[in-house]
Amino acid sequence: MAQNDNTVYRASTTAPVNIAVIKYWGKRDAALNLPTNSSLSVTLSQQSLRTLTTASCAAAYPASDTLTLNGKPQDIQSSKRTLACLSNLRDLRRALENADPSLPKLSAYPLRIVSENNFPTAAGLASSAAGFAALVRAIADLYELPQSPTELSRIARQGSGSACRSLMGGYVAWRAGTKADGSDSIAEEVASASHWPDMRAMILVVSAEKKDVPSTEGMQTTVATSSLFSTRAELTVPARMAAIEAAIRDRDFPTFAEITMRDSNGFHATCLDSWPPIFYMNDVSRAAVRIVHDINRAAAKTVAAYTFDAGPNAVIYYLDEASTVVAGTFKEILGQKTDGWEGPFADRLKTVSKGVDLSQLDSRAVDVLRDGVSRVILTGVGEGPVKVNEHLVSEKGDILSSAA
Amino acid sequence: MAQNDNTVYRASTTAPVNIAVIKYWGKRDAALNLPTNSSLSVTLSQQSLRTLTTASCAAAYPASDTLTLNGKPQDIQSSKRTLACLSNLRDLRRALENADPSLPKLSAYPLRIVSENNFPTAAGLASSAAGFAALVRAIADLYELPQSPTELSRIARQGSGSACRSLMGGYVAWRAGTKADGSDSIAEEVASASHWPDMRAMILVVSAEKKDVPSTEGMQTTVATSSLFSTRAELTVPARMAAIEAAIRDRDFPTFAEITMRDSNGFHATCLDSWPPIFYMNDVSRAAVRIVHDINRAAAKTVAAYTFDAGPNAVIYYLDEASTVVAGTFKEILGQKTDGWEGPFADRLKTVSKGVDLSQLDSRAVDVLRDGVSRVILTGVGEGPVKVNEHLVSEKGDILSSAA
Repeated sequence: MAQNDNTVYRASTTAPVNIAVIKYWGKRDAALNLPTNSSLSVTLSQQSLRTLTTASCAAAYPASDTLTLNGKPQDIQSSKRTLACLSNLRDLRRALENADPSLPKLSAYPLRIVSENNFPTAAGLASSAAGFAALVRAIADLYELPQSPTELSRIARQGSGSACRSLMGGYVAWRAGTKADGSDSIAEEVASASHWPDMRAMILVVSAEKKDVPSTEGMQTTVATSSLFSTRAELTVPARMAAIEAAIRDRDFPTFAEITMRDSNGFHATCLDSWPPIFYMNDVSRAAVRIVHDINRAAAKTVAAYTFDAGPNAVIYYLDEASTVVAGTFKEILGQKTDGWEGPFADRLKTVSKGVDLSQLDSRAVDVLRDGVSRVILTGVGEGPVKVNEHLVSEKGDILSSAA
Repeated sequence: MAQNDNTVYRASTTAPVNIAVIKYWGKRDAALNLPTNSSLSVTLSQQSLRTLTTASCAAAYPASDTLTLNGKPQDIQSSKRTLACLSNLRDLRRALENADPSLPKLSAYPLRIVSENNFPTAAGLASSAAGFAALVRAIADLYELPQSPTELSRIARQGSGSACRSLMGGYVAWRAGTKADGSDSIAEEVASASHWPDMRAMILVVSAEKKDVPSTEGMQTTVATSSLFSTRAELTVPARMAAIEAAIRDRDFPTFAEITMRDSNGFHATCLDSWPPIFYMNDVSRAAVRIVHDINRAAAKTVAAYTFDAGPNAVIYYLDEASTVVAGTFKEILGQKTDGWEGPFADRLKTVSKGVDLSQLDSRAVDVLRDGVSRVILTGVGEGPVKVNEHLVSEKGDILSSAA
């Protein structure tokens, strides 16, 4: 049955943030966002951090596609990456329409996309991964595409490399692939969240300092100038990928943790080895590193792992059973003056007793951390994108604000 | 003619500090101090920094060798490195005595060695290089050994690796060598100080923080654990050694500077890539890096180069002709509240006008540097050890204090 011309088609999804434990750094093809090495991440719970995106289309919309992000209209036409995603998704829809002429010709309709993050941009969390994953997932739902998350990951990757890993939950590998067209550079779930559900993540948000170079520029500098980078990409990371996948399969936290920390350090080492050098970690980051090593020493086993993306924030992985010794210790250091201890994962902390005695920690690192961390986000491993009935576009096509 | 039994034989020398531009990091043999890679340093002027050492011996001295350092008796017997140097030097003296029976049997006499640095230990400057170079040179003079500085460098190397480079002035290479006995692991002058005399060095002493791991331990950790280290040792450094020797020969400062900075960054990258990670640079060091890059950009050519040893202090190389734009800028940032602007190389700065306008520099880095640098030492390239008549042991064998 032909639809009324005024029909507004809508689909909404939430998508998660992911934090890599084997880092993506370096592109072998900048236009297609093809990486020099495979990477692996943990998808974080959407109970804490999520992007909500509504994709809508209608024959009656004005001719141009539009994207509104956190209430602000974006210039889609100047974003080749967004255009590439939209074009790929339209092609898939068009193929469906060609195969079944009874389908409405959504591929020909202008898109109206509205997206909101539930976390402050100022927190310095990589929001582009969740953003592009939500955009691709919402449009794929709108178009009723049959492609799997792994197939869609080829498209999301072109929006933002790490976005391909936010299309799935749990533990997700992005295979670098070798083909020039990128068709084998895809994400796949290595293990579901339920396989190892007690993984926790504590994000220490470090008081904002002007960020060093943006990731894309930094990656290109590293690939072009670091004399150590090719060893990392060709030898070190492949060995770590195999080892950490085994550790995840075996739920072997100490091995998972050591590889995570070593890979973070190795990634930042290649940044420092770049020309000019790139520094993302600062003294507060270094203090977090030291405290994690001190906690592990005090616990006489590896109960915590740090990792740092292209910025000073620390993400600390630990298992729920180590909440007292890990999160409890950080809570004692940072105290109540640090924001963010509330939230869905905070209940656990109300029942923990004292963590490691602070006398067992480097006192200078304790002071630096206390002064430098402004906010804590407690979360854990979680699921991939979820289809929701909360829409950011009304039935008539008006842009709405999130209820949150 | 036989000497009176009360004769005290004495020889005194001063020896310089050297600061590497291609870093020594990693031992292939810990007992012999054989390095994994060659290194290259600039010998700094003894007008600013020097160790003064008197070596004396006498038949009448009590049986044990003694060493007094900055007024404090040292436990020689527990220092294998010192014992190795003394043993090697005695062997060379004994060979002379065997060849010429008329020589006094100094090799059989107890040694009394007294050494003083003219710079505060708290400054965090590597004093062991100057210390062992002075010790070896003074005893070689006492024993009237015919060996060249390069031949003596084999011995000094066993005291402290970098000490072998302090036996010569100017620009000094330490060839890693390949032999298991270390006989080809020696230092040699690549160019004299007079070949390129206008090289200046400004040491920014960063307020002391507890140092990370000691160098020897750190090196062993890096060699054993860094996945990037072998690439540095086997590929990167050999290429840089050839390139920087050519730059020194050609007095090509921009090339010399870029290699110096990249090698410092690469060395610290392998430290960060170690397990557990080693951090020697801190936020003040990073601020110095940024300011040097900003000065070079403002000058539209490379006029300054930073390098960092196993600690947060920055050493900044520049040519005398760039005193205004380099030292003048740092003086404007650091102001008079920072100690150490006096000294033999400071006259030049009285006549410099304003350096780079501070508005062209990263304002946060300026603040961090101003807060974090406690002292400046201005110096330049200089000569190797010098025989002096100032003795720290009296004609009767009493230990004296330096006149300084």
